[in-house]
Order: sequence, then structure tokens, then C-alpha cells
Amino acid sequence: MNMLVDGEWRTDADEYADDDGSFQRQETTFRERVRDDPGAEFQPEAGRYHLYVSFACPWAHRTLLTRSLKGLEDAIGVSVVDPYRDEDGWQFTPEKDGCTRDRVHGVDYLRELYVRADPAVTGRVTVPVLWDTREDTIVNNESREIMRMLDTGFEEVAGRDVDLYPEGYREEVDRILDEIYEPINNGVYRAGFATEQAPYDEAVDDLFSALERWNDVLADRRYLAGDRLTEADLAMFTTLVRFDSVYHTHFMCNRKLIREYDNLWPHLRDLYQTPGVARTVNMDHIKEHYYTTHPSVNPHRIVARGPDLDFEAPHGRDELPGDRPAALAAANDD
Amino acid sequence: MNMLVDGEWRTDADEYADDDGSFQRQETTFRERVRDDPGAEFQPEAGRYHLYVSFACPWAHRTLLTRSLKGLEDAIGVSVVDPYRDEDGWQFTPEKDGCTRDRVHGVDYLRELYVRADPAVTGRVTVPVLWDTREDTIVNNESREIMRMLDTGFEEVAGRDVDLYPEGYREEVDRILDEIYEPINNGVYRAGFATEQAPYDEAVDDLFSALERWNDVLADRRYLAGDRLTEADLAMFTTLVRFDSVYHTHFMCNRKLIREYDNLWPHLRDLYQTPGVARTVNMDHIKEHYYTTHPSVNPHRIVARGPDLDFEAPHGRDELPGDRPAALAAANDD
Repeated sequence: MNMLVDGEWRTDADEYADDDGSFQRQETTFRERVRDDPGAEFQPEAGRYHLYVSFACPWAHRTLLTRSLKGLEDAIGVSVVDPYRDEDGWQFTPEKDGCTRDRVHGVDYLRELYVRADPAVTGRVTVPVLWDTREDTIVNNESREIMRMLDTGFEEVAGRDVDLYPEGYREEVDRILDEIYEPINNGVYRAGFATEQAPYDEAVDDLFSALERWNDVLADRRYLAGDRLTEADLAMFTTLVRFDSVYHTHFMCNRKLIREYDNLWPHLRDLYQTPGVARTVNMDHIKEHYYTTHPSVNPHRIVARGPDLDFEAPHGRDELPGDRPAALAAANDD
Repeated sequence: MNMLVDGEWRTDADEYADDDGSFQRQETTFRERVRDDPGAEFQPEAGRYHLYVSFACPWAHRTLLTRSLKGLEDAIGVSVVDPYRDEDGWQFTPEKDGCTRDRVHGVDYLRELYVRADPAVTGRVTVPVLWDTREDTIVNNESREIMRMLDTGFEEVAGRDVDLYPEGYREEVDRILDEIYEPINNGVYRAGFATEQAPYDEAVDDLFSALERWNDVLADRRYLAGDRLTEADLAMFTTLVRFDSVYHTHFMCNRKLIREYDNLWPHLRDLYQTPGVARTVNMDHIKEHYYTTHPSVNPHRIVARGPDLDFEAPHGRDELPGDRPAALAAANDD
């Protein structure tokens, strides 16, 4: 595994693990919050923060979606890394389609920003990263927290009146985010990176049990938490939109395709067709990343050719209780 | 690659290849025929011939299917190798479910029979093998020829009046066998064993173009060659029955599942439900073989858990022009 150890890039970081595979060293955490509070260190402000993402990464995708649905594009800039990640980790290759330079510092590797934020940093170098250009540091690199911050911490600079964590739904949203994390969001990784049969089998069983259950839930409600689009739907979306193209084949999650589910598949299309969503989905980056970056899973790094998915097909979900946020129902800017 | 060279088992046989990957040495061929002709060396006779197969192998499966549909079980014995093939090649592991000992000679490895047939044999050790217990040698190890022999060469010992190469259809059957070989039967292997993107892409494109075309053909005829079940259907069946469980995931032939085709999938179920067919399908052997035998494709040898296919679901194909052979319409012995 590659990671930073005391600010040094190590490609042999497995040596720092205990026998049970856990790391001996405490990893550095960037878990600050942007809050609309005069006493807060990080206050919302247009132009101050920058988001580092990969279009390939489902965790980064949550934050991109939130930025897009909230109309925060003008307030928060984005830099996009190369979907192919080699032993040097995520890097900036602006010449490549869909990628950008590091628009804040112009560095070549994402790890340089981690060291800039903390010269003695220890830990994996991941996306998303929310960067503060004023303090020149990382505010946070945990996707769920960044999603929440963009959703609730930037109201005064948001271009659209869209609330993805509405009063009256918050407990349910948090419960769903918790519930889908292990079997679904992380479950596909547990299946795909298993090196033995038993943990793979367990991951696949958990994954498909959860998918069946949430498919049932979506039979009579438009969104996961009920009649309102919430962060829970975004968290489900970023896994499901990758599923048939990547997880089903590359991670051998092949019990069923999402397009074979009566409700998950229309729900996925409903979200995809929500203004602001489609532009955050870069299937080329998604496929290139997974199929080429994990030689232990796919030694020849061949990118699977299928499937051809029609995310634009009618979804019929507007018959169910629940409406798109009014600000999104009107917009059609994809 | 493992193969026999002048009767010696070599696990470094790649060294015998030319730069373009072709073999320098002439491979030995076993291409004799069983014929109902008083002057023929190999004449049909109950109890004289023995079939060596793997339940995993689609080529061997053709011959097992023919033996079963023709009612040749009593006349021609079968030995079944272990689905897992390591560097020693196909072997006999009678303690394993669904496998048998070598019922003719009791050897441990299939390669021993090749050497017994020709002490100076050079070539790959493959199934199926049709063995002559009287001459103690291999008659033939080419699946299409063995299928044809079992179909047309054993009429007097066959237990059922089933003709899979009927007069009036023969040209069409041969044409279809030729046409489906490269894009479909062999196409899945070309895709799965490609080590570069371009040949993989080409194989997948050819494969799915052919599947689309044959799916269309099956819209208004029950069987590939028209209204009669023929060898062409068997050759298609052995690839399609493996497709969703193995080729779609393991060989990354993931543009579509067979169960997503309007006519190929019902055709596959129609055949599966034909008496004598289901007992030749051992999905456990199929999955174990592919997922565990090709570490260059699946390094951790984890067997994919999905999908759950219902081959017994109603197929509705009896509405189309064409009937099952009368001898099979009556039988129900699976």
C-alpha cells in the first residue's frame, strides 16, 4: 500500500502494519468543519474553498453531486485528478480528457497538498479533499462530512435553494447513511478486494440482501428517506451508478445487475435525470480507474467494454409520493 | 503453457513457440472416425468406446449432450476429470463430487492416456477424448467431430431415435456450426484471454454482434437451423449456458447478459428443459473450473457467487414452428 508516513511518500507502507493488517501509526485526520458561525475558524465564503475530486471515486462523487445540486459551482472551485492511479497515487494530468491541473497550487501529485497541509502527515492520500485557500490547508477529507458541509454550511453562497438534509428527515437520513455504508457503499469494495473466498462470499451476501431490502423500500416512496430527495439518495446513487459497469464485473458482485431491479434502477435513472446530476457522472473516468488501477484484480488492465446503459430512459417515479426540490424541478441545465 | 512434447510433459512449453506465438512443432492429431462400415477400423459397438470429459468444458459438453440425447449412456461410458486444472493438466480425483476415476485404466492424469495412445505425442492435453477400449487408443479428440460421430455413427446402438443432423438440414447445420464458432464459441475465450485492449475489444464486438444476429434469427423459429433440433443448437447451448455465470464476469463479456435477450434466453431454457440435457449441466464444475484455473485472469481464484439463474422457468418456445424430437417429447428422465 502507498501512503504518507511522517510526510514521506512510502510505497512499502505494508511494513508499517501490524500482523492483523491494522496500522501501527496513528493516521492524521483532517476533520474540521466549515460553519456559518462568526467564531468558527472556517466560515462559508464564495471563492475561499476548493474541492479536489476524482470523477472515478464514489466518495468524491458525493461531494461533487452536492456542490452541483446546491448551485455551488461558482463559489467552490474543483480540480479533477487522473482516473488512473499508479504507485505515485492520485496525480494531475491536465492534458487528459476530463482532468484538470491543480487549480490552486499547480502541483503534480495530490500527496503534495497533504504534505503542504501538514509536513508530518501520516496516512493514505485520498479524494475528496476540501481545501481552504485562505489558511492554505485541508479542512476535511471525509466524504460524508464534506457532503454535509456543502449541504448545510454554505447556504448564503449556494446558488439554489435545495436542502438535502431537511428538518424532520435528519434522523432518518443519518440512519440510512449509516445503514447503507457497510453492506453497499463499502460492501462492493469488501467483495472486490477480498483475497479469500469466505470474506468475499459474506460481502456479496450482505450486499445483495441490502440491495433487495432497499429495492423494496423504494417500491412506494420516491426517495430513500421518503418524499424528499436527501443526502441518502446521493450516497446510494454513487454506488449504484457504478454498479453494472464496474462492480458487477470487476468486483464480481454478479448476483444481479442494478438494471434488473424494479425500483433501484428507476430510482437511479430518476436521480440521473435530476438537473445537475448527469454532469457529475463521467463513466469513462469510472471505468478507466477501476479496470486499470487494480492489477491484483485485473492483471492485464483491460477495460471492460460493456454495458450500454440508458440512464435517460423514462423512470416513471414521479407517480410516487415525493417531488424533486422545486429549484431542481424548474432547472434543466445539464 | 503445459503440453506434451514427444511424449514428455512440459510446463515450459512456451519455449517451443515461435516469436509470433505459434508452435514450431507439429502437434499430433487424433482425428479418426467411428463409421458404420464393415471395412472401417473403428466400427460402432456398444461397450467399446469411452468418453473422457470435463463438465466444465463447453467443447466436451457438446459430446456429453449428444450422448445423452441419443440415449448412448449404456453403450458409451464416461469418465469425468476434476474441474480444477493445475500445472499437471486435467486429472482424475474420484473423491470429489461429480468427478470419477479413469474408468478404463485407472490412471491419475489425462495426459497418461495421450501417451498411451502415442508414446511420442506432441500437443495440448484436452477434453473431450473418445477412447477405443479395443485398440486401446484415442479415436478422436476434436469436439465437433466426436459430436458428429456420436450423432450419426452409432445409430444401431443408440437408445433413442433422435437425429441431430437430419437430411435436408445438413448444409445449414454445418454452416451454423462454422458461423458461430469464431465469434461465439471461441469468441468468449478470445475476449477472456486477451492481454491487450484492442484484441479484447474486437472479440467483444464480434461476440455481441453475433449474439444479436442469432437472437433475431430465433424470433420466428424454434431452433437455429429451423424447425428441427440439431447439433447447431447444442453448440450454441454449451456457450450460452455458461455465459451469465462465467463469461460475462470472468471473461469480461459484459455488454449484455444472455438472460436479457428476448430469444436467446428462452431458447437456452427450452434446450435446458429438453429431456437428457439438464443432467449434463454441472454449474458447480463450470464455475470452479473457470474462476480457479486462470490466475492470470482471476489472481485470487475466488469463485463468483452469482447469478441465480432459473433455467426451469417457462420458455414459451413451443408456440414457434418446430417441435422437439418425438423421442424426447415423450421422455422425461431428468
